[in-house]
Amino acid sequence: MSMRVESDTMGTINVPADKYYGAQTARSLANFDIGGEKMPREIIKAFGILKKAAALANTKLGLMDEKTRDLIVAAADEVIAGKLGDHFPLVVWQTGSGTQSNMNVNEVISNRAIEMAGGEMGSKKPVHPNDHVNMSQSSNDTYPTAMHIAAVEAVENYLYGRVELLRDTLKSKADEYMDVVKIGRTHLQDATPLTLGQEISGWVAQIDYALAAIKATMPQLKELALGGTAVGTGLNAHPDYAVAVAKEIAQLTGHDFVTGPNKFALLAGHDAFVGASGALKQLAVAFMKIANDVRWLASGPRSGLGEITIPENEPGSSIMPGKVNPTQSEAMTMVVAQVMGNDAAIGFAASQGNFELNVFKPVIAYNFLQSVRLLADAAKSFNDNCAVGIQPDRKRITQLVDQSLMLVTALNRRIGYDNAAKIAKTAHKNGTTLREEAINLGLLTGEEFDAEVKPEQMVGPLSLKK
Amino acid sequence: MSMRVESDTMGTINVPADKYYGAQTARSLANFDIGGEKMPREIIKAFGILKKAAALANTKLGLMDEKTRDLIVAAADEVIAGKLGDHFPLVVWQTGSGTQSNMNVNEVISNRAIEMAGGEMGSKKPVHPNDHVNMSQSSNDTYPTAMHIAAVEAVENYLYGRVELLRDTLKSKADEYMDVVKIGRTHLQDATPLTLGQEISGWVAQIDYALAAIKATMPQLKELALGGTAVGTGLNAHPDYAVAVAKEIAQLTGHDFVTGPNKFALLAGHDAFVGASGALKQLAVAFMKIANDVRWLASGPRSGLGEITIPENEPGSSIMPGKVNPTQSEAMTMVVAQVMGNDAAIGFAASQGNFELNVFKPVIAYNFLQSVRLLADAAKSFNDNCAVGIQPDRKRITQLVDQSLMLVTALNRRIGYDNAAKIAKTAHKNGTTLREEAINLGLLTGEEFDAEVKPEQMVGPLSLKK
Amino acid sequence: MSMRVESDTMGTINVPADKYYGAQTARSLANFDIGGEKMPREIIKAFGILKKAAALANTKLGLMDEKTRDLIVAAADEVIAGKLGDHFPLVVWQTGSGTQSNMNVNEVISNRAIEMAGGEMGSKKPVHPNDHVNMSQSSNDTYPTAMHIAAVEAVENYLYGRVELLRDTLKSKADEYMDVVKIGRTHLQDATPLTLGQEISGWVAQIDYALAAIKATMPQLKELALGGTAVGTGLNAHPDYAVAVAKEIAQLTGHDFVTGPNKFALLAGHDAFVGASGALKQLAVAFMKIANDVRWLASGPRSGLGEITIPENEPGSSIMPGKVNPTQSEAMTMVVAQVMGNDAAIGFAASQGNFELNVFKPVIAYNFLQSVRLLADAAKSFNDNCAVGIQPDRKRITQLVDQSLMLVTALNRRIGYDNAAKIAKTAHKNGTTLREEAINLGLLTGEEFDAEVKPEQMVGPLSLKK
Amino acid sequence: MSMRVESDTMGTINVPADKYYGAQTARSLANFDIGGEKMPREIIKAFGILKKAAALANTKLGLMDEKTRDLIVAAADEVIAGKLGDHFPLVVWQTGSGTQSNMNVNEVISNRAIEMAGGEMGSKKPVHPNDHVNMSQSSNDTYPTAMHIAAVEAVENYLYGRVELLRDTLKSKADEYMDVVKIGRTHLQDATPLTLGQEISGWVAQIDYALAAIKATMPQLKELALGGTAVGTGLNAHPDYAVAVAKEIAQLTGHDFVTGPNKFALLAGHDAFVGASGALKQLAVAFMKIANDVRWLASGPRSGLGEITIPENEPGSSIMPGKVNPTQSEAMTMVVAQVMGNDAAIGFAASQGNFELNVFKPVIAYNFLQSVRLLADAAKSFNDNCAVGIQPDRKRITQLVDQSLMLVTALNRRIGYDNAAKIAKTAHKNGTTLREEAINLGLLTGEEFDAEVKPEQMVGPLSLKK
Repeated sequence: MSMRVESDTMGTINVPADKYYGAQTARSLANFDIGGEKMPREIIKAFGILKKAAALANTKLGLMDEKTRDLIVAAADEVIAGKLGDHFPLVVWQTGSGTQSNMNVNEVISNRAIEMAGGEMGSKKPVHPNDHVNMSQSSNDTYPTAMHIAAVEAVENYLYGRVELLRDTLKSKADEYMDVVKIGRTHLQDATPLTLGQEISGWVAQIDYALAAIKATMPQLKELALGGTAVGTGLNAHPDYAVAVAKEIAQLTGHDFVTGPNKFALLAGHDAFVGASGALKQLAVAFMKIANDVRWLASGPRSGLGEITIPENEPGSSIMPGKVNPTQSEAMTMVVAQVMGNDAAIGFAASQGNFELNVFKPVIAYNFLQSVRLLADAAKSFNDNCAVGIQPDRKRITQLVDQSLMLVTALNRRIGYDNAAKIAKTAHKNGTTLREEAINLGLLTGEEFDAEVKPEQMVGPLSLKK
Repeated sequence: MSMRVESDTMGTINVPADKYYGAQTARSLANFDIGGEKMPREIIKAFGILKKAAALANTKLGLMDEKTRDLIVAAADEVIAGKLGDHFPLVVWQTGSGTQSNMNVNEVISNRAIEMAGGEMGSKKPVHPNDHVNMSQSSNDTYPTAMHIAAVEAVENYLYGRVELLRDTLKSKADEYMDVVKIGRTHLQDATPLTLGQEISGWVAQIDYALAAIKATMPQLKELALGGTAVGTGLNAHPDYAVAVAKEIAQLTGHDFVTGPNKFALLAGHDAFVGASGALKQLAVAFMKIANDVRWLASGPRSGLGEITIPENEPGSSIMPGKVNPTQSEAMTMVVAQVMGNDAAIGFAASQGNFELNVFKPVIAYNFLQSVRLLADAAKSFNDNCAVGIQPDRKRITQLVDQSLMLVTALNRRIGYDNAAKIAKTAHKNGTTLREEAINLGLLTGEEFDAEVKPEQMVGPLSLKK
Repeated sequence: MSMRVESDTMGTINVPADKYYGAQTARSLANFDIGGEKMPREIIKAFGILKKAAALANTKLGLMDEKTRDLIVAAADEVIAGKLGDHFPLVVWQTGSGTQSNMNVNEVISNRAIEMAGGEMGSKKPVHPNDHVNMSQSSNDTYPTAMHIAAVEAVENYLYGRVELLRDTLKSKADEYMDVVKIGRTHLQDATPLTLGQEISGWVAQIDYALAAIKATMPQLKELALGGTAVGTGLNAHPDYAVAVAKEIAQLTGHDFVTGPNKFALLAGHDAFVGASGALKQLAVAFMKIANDVRWLASGPRSGLGEITIPENEPGSSIMPGKVNPTQSEAMTMVVAQVMGNDAAIGFAASQGNFELNVFKPVIAYNFLQSVRLLADAAKSFNDNCAVGIQPDRKRITQLVDQSLMLVTALNRRIGYDNAAKIAKTAHKNGTTLREEAINLGLLTGEEFDAEVKPEQMVGPLSLKK
Repeated sequence: MSMRVESDTMGTINVPADKYYGAQTARSLANFDIGGEKMPREIIKAFGILKKAAALANTKLGLMDEKTRDLIVAAADEVIAGKLGDHFPLVVWQTGSGTQSNMNVNEVISNRAIEMAGGEMGSKKPVHPNDHVNMSQSSNDTYPTAMHIAAVEAVENYLYGRVELLRDTLKSKADEYMDVVKIGRTHLQDATPLTLGQEISGWVAQIDYALAAIKATMPQLKELALGGTAVGTGLNAHPDYAVAVAKEIAQLTGHDFVTGPNKFALLAGHDAFVGASGALKQLAVAFMKIANDVRWLASGPRSGLGEITIPENEPGSSIMPGKVNPTQSEAMTMVVAQVMGNDAAIGFAASQGNFELNVFKPVIAYNFLQSVRLLADAAKSFNDNCAVGIQPDRKRITQLVDQSLMLVTALNRRIGYDNAAKIAKTAHKNGTTLREEAINLGLLTGEEFDAEVKPEQMVGPLSLKK
């Protein structure tokens, strides 16, 4: 492998000639041979935005010349576009402030800018990784800023649309099946009826609540630490810089980022991620309920509940038709388990700040972004490969309602509680239907029974009944 | 023990004569001899409010006569006032819908109302536990309603004030010590200075963020399930009941409760508690940081950081003065550990709903309310017994700043980076101060050094410097 | 309330005249008004054992006279017997070393011993709380020792028997129903058959694995910290004390406690509780599976799986027979949720030791003992009120097997794969049985079908088939 | 991209011509576009071992011819050697039984074997993915078997050595510094002295306990599900197969794997992973304590505790010497946070089995193996880049001990408690040393003080003192 020499304050070190990164990245690779989980690409992209915004703000404040700015912006744009992925090799398990990934970005932008300018990589001229790319910044305020940018973009640009896709599919299913009367189940026991549409509407409402919960956590993530520099005081930063750079970031991303009013809290705590992860967990919990209901309702083909059918996406049993494994529910619920675990990791990590710095930043970012990605992808996969194809088995649904003993409550007014109970008990004992025993016991004719027992009139408050 | 006979649909059972509860409570006691954790008193109180509100709403809707209403209201008021605590013996680990606690309340209110009316306990006349006290209700919609009432009252009436007490104490400390320049610490290593007030302001900001996060979760908890009855359809309830009873609850509590638009979600999921518990965890995380910073800053008396002193509330070492164990931090951080665990329990429980019901209701309520109570109490205890007495050890703080090597950065402009670094390296090697070595090396006089190195000018952005 | 004056190194304080506790307990009550969770009674009892053992060991080593020993032993025996419960009012949320509960015990034993000796409570004569009851001890080594004693006693004396009760009931059910052939279910979909006894044997095996896992964690909990005194060095303790006192504790409890070889680890970490709690979580996970299987198998009466029936312990629906809510499963699974949360709290707390002490001791003890208690009680309750009454619904079980399409695989050898698949597909399409379609399609007579398709021959490896 | 046609029971599908995988893998890729976390390579390797062992056992049992066996073994050996990594593209978030990864392995081995035999890929001749590679197997028993093989190999082959490396380094440090007397710290407050070696010995003991805890969980992971086939009954497997194939796996791996006595439990629960993950969490907790102690002891250079120095691996402050960020501690503690989260995910997932199958298998494997990998790598990284270079700052350590007020307890015997306390209080008030005030107060001469106050005699039980 062809190498070139890069240097930092500790001395020189060889780096691969075809890589833009420099000495500090190379040292980190050597010092942290732990796992293989790379710094999330969303963080790298966020750093690209941040570095671009910093260059723009520094130039407006008269601290950087336009030529340097343009070089940095051009290189940063490539980072943002994801063109330089191979140049960010560092893992999550590094310095807890994310310093080395900040330096990785500084080095890559510097060398790529140098290359664009026709200079020599590693020379730090004309674009210096520290003096220029990192101008008015510290790892301690850039990394949390990148965390916030990445989190907001992931949630608002990636998660919302995918979750709403599933939500809207379920809403249309709820509307479509609003009149399909089915047995209700509480404690897993037969209960009074409702419609399939009502049941599905509950899933929609759960997703709506979860989305509202997530949205309510975004304002805190839109407050940025940049401008706090090393300990939150803003030492060595221009007094107008914090506001200016947040404004640039807001413009570049289209999200209403602002500078945080207290930088000490934003460097030393990442509490907003705890609240936001809690809201993601609320979504996970809703998904668990939905995925479980779907697979139970689709259980069978003969010995389950069998009230709905779901798409068959892969071979089930080769000889036994109708065995459709609910694999999308399974993937979804495994994602839920992961999000639960990630939330625990985030809570632990966020609690461990000391004085002016929390040094669990990368692990927080890693878990939060994984949760967002998995929930979003699982929502889309579940939507495309399962939810859109949910169909009621109307025959089975009707059969279960008709044979239900719960309907006996509809007879109370006509024949009195005691007679109604007698019908139910006899039917339960004999394994027959209420209608059969009502006739057998001479309490009602079939026609009378049918006139009284109308499940479709039991799916709402009193006024809905005739 | 004197006993009387109570009955339910399964038959008769003896209950203690001096207790208001009836047959179903007695059965639950026998069937669930598990642990000793009682149904939280906040839930019992919330049930009192709920039963009173239901009686008022049912009467307004013409379903209950005023005499029955008044008896129920009178008995419910005693439940609300906490006068009947001994009559609610059931544990958390019961039916997962909380049915038995709902029946416990019905039985107690019924029998207490009967007693007030001069009737015979257990006779169910003139106030029937099911027909009257539980009118227009099901366990399935009352218990979640009681959960929401209890949660909102606990958070808004109990938690906020206690947390704000601590927050305000810390705010006044931040203001008071805004000019006490001290060493900053990042990675536990000496960093550029900030003021003690700035450091404490970060704690205040963390609490403010957490309170905002908690507040953002309240709207979902203010949506009530009542009116959904057994499966969410509202079967057997008056069509105007849901709105009416929520209005009564709002008036009785002073919180803006409303009826939830989708009752299916509110019976089958308790997702709102997941989001809200996540916000409580955010507060816990903030408390962890604060309690840790306080105990580390107070560490010593000789071999720690020693920058602040905290009140001595109990005997430390009998012979060694100055050893003040940070016991309030210890209680606080143990509470944090508990809240972390409770959040995990809530997430698990909330994910396990099926179809029309989640049957992990009591365990969710138990953990959520414990978290609220512990956070609130710990905040007040920490405030009263620690935070109010935090004092800086100005001598120690100044000594640490003065001997810091970080201040050398202030000399860059005057004598250049290389000379500044030389001073720092020499001082580090010799264990001396920058000032001493600046003079020794002949680079600056003492007066020149003092004129350049002003820590108080390093605690803000550039513009704050002269 | 009648009061008396007690004193400690901070001065005097009033305590209720009818309580044995002294000044430090009274201060703790005032300083830690947090929650209401009392120090677990198992810890108090363990302290009684510990104080008795210390007195015995100290006397044997010539450090204490026999009269003092006898007084301490007599008072400690009352603590062990649980007679003095009202005198231990302290909550979990106190000093993180449990110092105040150690002092509470010292004070109570001292004053009760003084009372027995005819002395004046609070006089500290003839039995001094520190000099005598706490002789050769420090809070820092007594509290972890009490944690270990309490944990081992709770697990070995309380948990094992209750879990084995359930295990044995299930084992007898497995044996009893070893020939009841039923449908298997994987992915909630119909699968090849097994017997109900085989299914239940899986539950038994899960419990056996969990018990083995718990047992494997006991040796670490049987290593005691006592003798380490304040920081683990054993300063001020007799060199033979650590071994001697562990021997006394072993004799008093009947458990093979030994002194830990490294006291530094035992004061500063409580890692053994993390491993042991993980094993408790393994048991919880097994219980979740069992309780879920039971409630699903018992679901119905008409619209569920309905393969087993469980005891009806409380009123279900008054009018609808056969609706038996699986309330024991619900209590059990809520306990599981709690154990999951407790495990998270324990892990967090145990990770936070610093230098010579972990100050999250009480919260670890509280959560661990609650987990043990709840698992044990839930096992017994589930056993007594549910498991013993599990009965197969043989008619339903047979019906489901007979109508299953999975049995078609038994026809492969006779009529070939393609014909077998044709039968299955036709039956699936028509909603008929394999037998019906085998005849309809003219492939087999009824007798031939019955001779080939024998579910009872499909519940084991090849050799079991004829 | 060049494609070829592969088929399964659902029909044909295009797959890349240069990949060995077939139709079911291709479908899974299309159906599960979720996240990017690949099925862990340890699982793929374990499948290679399993498939090889199955071929060997099937041949011995007369079910497979030697030619087919040899082809499968040859292809499986390449899987085991990691040569075919690009052919296993599936993610964790798939069918919860891991069916698709089992098929992925079947397809790859089949096609690679076909290629070796000169056949046509996709033709399933002469080596059929189902009939041959998957002979006597079901996804339901292969995946859990692969989980167990992978877990045992990861723990015993990868984790132990790396953790022992760190343990041994710390042991040698403990031995080396067994006589370096330093201040003890409890509650973060100065306490009686101990030696640095003693302090480090506590870390060693914590690791030893954790390793013992992990080892105690291995027997359960060494019981294999293979032979249970689809539901645990062993249907379609040779009666001697289960024992035979476990023996092959034991021989191939060198670990004492055996067939599990109850296959139902092994398919439907993965409880052993819960216990084992709990033991991993015990190790994590020990690492947290150690990493925290190291960074606090190394805090400074001027305003921290500063008792040890650690290697400087990357640039800290360019101008300020002595600021060495404890980055290895930071990486280590982030790993701890992850392991905590992973444990929560595993517990949740393992609790969710139903009837004959738990369908959270891949997420359990993913988290468990990540925990093992991260703990192992972090141990090695921490060892190589930090622990080996830990050095005491003897001057600082001695200074802190000498100025400690705790040493005053050594004077009790000579001058009485009251005089000793007076010295301490005066020294505390004046900020002086005990020695100075002992002289000033005329209680002892300097020589007398030095003769009495010997910290090195305070680091053990009484007998160690002269």
